[in-house]
Amino acid sequence: MSNPALQYVNSRIHPEKLKQFCIEALQAAGLSSDHAEQTADVLVTTDAWGTFSHGSRQLVPLLNNLRKGGLKADAQPEIVDQGSGFVVVDGHFAMPMVTSRLAMQAAIDKARSAGIAYAAVRRSGHYGAAGYYAVMAAEQDMIGLSMTNVDVCMTVPGARAPVIGTNPLAYAVPAGTERTVFLDIATSVVAISKVIAAKTAGKPIPEGWLVDELGRPTTDTSTYPDKGAILPMAGHKGYGVALLIEILAGVLTGASFLSGIKPWLVPDPQPADEGHAFVAVNIESLIPIDTFKARMDAMIGEVRSAPKAEGSDRIYLPGEMEWERFDLAHKNGIQLPDYVLINLFSVAEQTGLTDRLIAMLEEE
Amino acid sequence: MSNPALQYVNSRIHPEKLKQFCIEALQAAGLSSDHAEQTADVLVTTDAWGTFSHGSRQLVPLLNNLRKGGLKADAQPEIVDQGSGFVVVDGHFAMPMVTSRLAMQAAIDKARSAGIAYAAVRRSGHYGAAGYYAVMAAEQDMIGLSMTNVDVCMTVPGARAPVIGTNPLAYAVPAGTERTVFLDIATSVVAISKVIAAKTAGKPIPEGWLVDELGRPTTDTSTYPDKGAILPMAGHKGYGVALLIEILAGVLTGASFLSGIKPWLVPDPQPADEGHAFVAVNIESLIPIDTFKARMDAMIGEVRSAPKAEGSDRIYLPGEMEWERFDLAHKNGIQLPDYVLINLFSVAEQTGLTDRLIAMLEEE
Repeated sequence: MSNPALQYVNSRIHPEKLKQFCIEALQAAGLSSDHAEQTADVLVTTDAWGTFSHGSRQLVPLLNNLRKGGLKADAQPEIVDQGSGFVVVDGHFAMPMVTSRLAMQAAIDKARSAGIAYAAVRRSGHYGAAGYYAVMAAEQDMIGLSMTNVDVCMTVPGARAPVIGTNPLAYAVPAGTERTVFLDIATSVVAISKVIAAKTAGKPIPEGWLVDELGRPTTDTSTYPDKGAILPMAGHKGYGVALLIEILAGVLTGASFLSGIKPWLVPDPQPADEGHAFVAVNIESLIPIDTFKARMDAMIGEVRSAPKAEGSDRIYLPGEMEWERFDLAHKNGIQLPDYVLINLFSVAEQTGLTDRLIAMLEEE
Repeated sequence: MSNPALQYVNSRIHPEKLKQFCIEALQAAGLSSDHAEQTADVLVTTDAWGTFSHGSRQLVPLLNNLRKGGLKADAQPEIVDQGSGFVVVDGHFAMPMVTSRLAMQAAIDKARSAGIAYAAVRRSGHYGAAGYYAVMAAEQDMIGLSMTNVDVCMTVPGARAPVIGTNPLAYAVPAGTERTVFLDIATSVVAISKVIAAKTAGKPIPEGWLVDELGRPTTDTSTYPDKGAILPMAGHKGYGVALLIEILAGVLTGASFLSGIKPWLVPDPQPADEGHAFVAVNIESLIPIDTFKARMDAMIGEVRSAPKAEGSDRIYLPGEMEWERFDLAHKNGIQLPDYVLINLFSVAEQTGLTDRLIAMLEEE
């Protein structure tokens, strides 16, 4: 029998309604209304961008972490050290979205007078989409950078097994009449979810994505992820960037690093102790903000109007696709993919919110 | 008749001697002894790392820029604005290595109390190997980042012509008993020099390096670089990183950006107006430096001892190959590749230093 969630694959749900569902589910799992609201905002903004892999579907593992002790529902992140251009935040294993918002906002506040500020976060966990926190800075006329280490799953040149995480890098930069330029990338050649999707579909993958258990290039996903490992983007270059993020987010912050990070997507997760690094650059310290925004618009215009490749009718700026999806989501509601619906119905069942979710999906 | 320089392809020259030659050549081109010494140190450190493409061979275009007005031999870089965590440097088209050293040192000095600092540089030119400035920070117990924009030569997804430069990113991080981890990469899939080398050898290149004049993938180098363009590393990811560097080094600093940057490798160069961005993070502000270094050693040890791929007997950390070459260069002298020797002999001829260069090469 097919999953009852699947009858809603053609439904649409407004982001505000989806956010309300996330808030209620997180409160049912023990979060304060404030922490639930902050977490829901990260998840649903991510869904509205169309990055469903990191949106509300993550309620399932987040709730499991709250239940099993990987995250602490009643913990509060704390600034444990600070100076004119930096803060150190101990997450105390509170919801990583709450910790990360606090840390990025602290960096933004420090950067206002210092010009640039760095927030180091330790004792945190999976913080969702890295780009969310970078965009916080852009919305306050700053350039934002967001990085985290994650549990090992990627190999490096010369190795055959997972050595490092797919440590993501995100940035956001405000423009004038143009939308905020923003990028959120894993440092792997491709998202692991794409390898799993090919495996589920029984399809081979392109060369260059995966090595087998002997470290040889493979297009066969049949033994992954038990054996083999995903490759960094651009070979030694992606390895080097992933290692920089491991250092800025893990080694420097006092968080765990490499194999010290506990996996969060397991049945019985322990505190992951991921570390995050946030940087805010106050544009106005360096150049009048209006001048900067006009220069950004000029740069964007030049990229967009470059001669097109055969078969291409458009050049996208980083983040442009996401903002178009975001606008459509807020206008017409979000059409959730089947796997997100299945996850949400599972959460609804755990939290007694099934009727509430169905009503929200049917209302639109 | 073969180039007389080529009889020295098996010679070795000690880095200190090569540096002395560079100093004399730069002074002959009008630089002060101080500026000549600083510039030579950048070029020869780069040669000692084995990154010959960015070492002393660049004396030829640097001297041409000094002669034609692309660079000003008597100009001095100037700090034109500053705050607790930032400086803005106007290079006044002085030697970019001198400007960049001043800017990175200013960032390091600011970071000592602020925790992190950013140096913005405008009105500069080709600064050589990005990694040199990052290593300056590491030698002072800081994490260093170094970025620059360069004249357009790389296309982006959807385009067919050059849109942006191969904007390099470099970082350096000190360790304890281990060597400084450092990476210096262009954001293109491969260095343009490798495409040119394949073209010279009449060989095809792998797919994924180049597009032709219609933006189609090609392995044919015959019309490059007149037509076609090199691709970013990792597709949209490398494009996004190159654009971040364009913003941090160009849009934010007040330097030129994208097509506004003048090419420096032309017969009659104008001031390039490249911009640079340097960041220094003071480790001790965040974590005791000895703790950090021990954590770096642990991280490095874990990466190095990972299970090896079939056919691999070693996993390199970023910078490890460079430091091994550096140590050998200082022990045994540098064996300069033919194209570097040809460039040095050309410089020697222009500056009346041919006998001096020959004596240095024969002495070893």
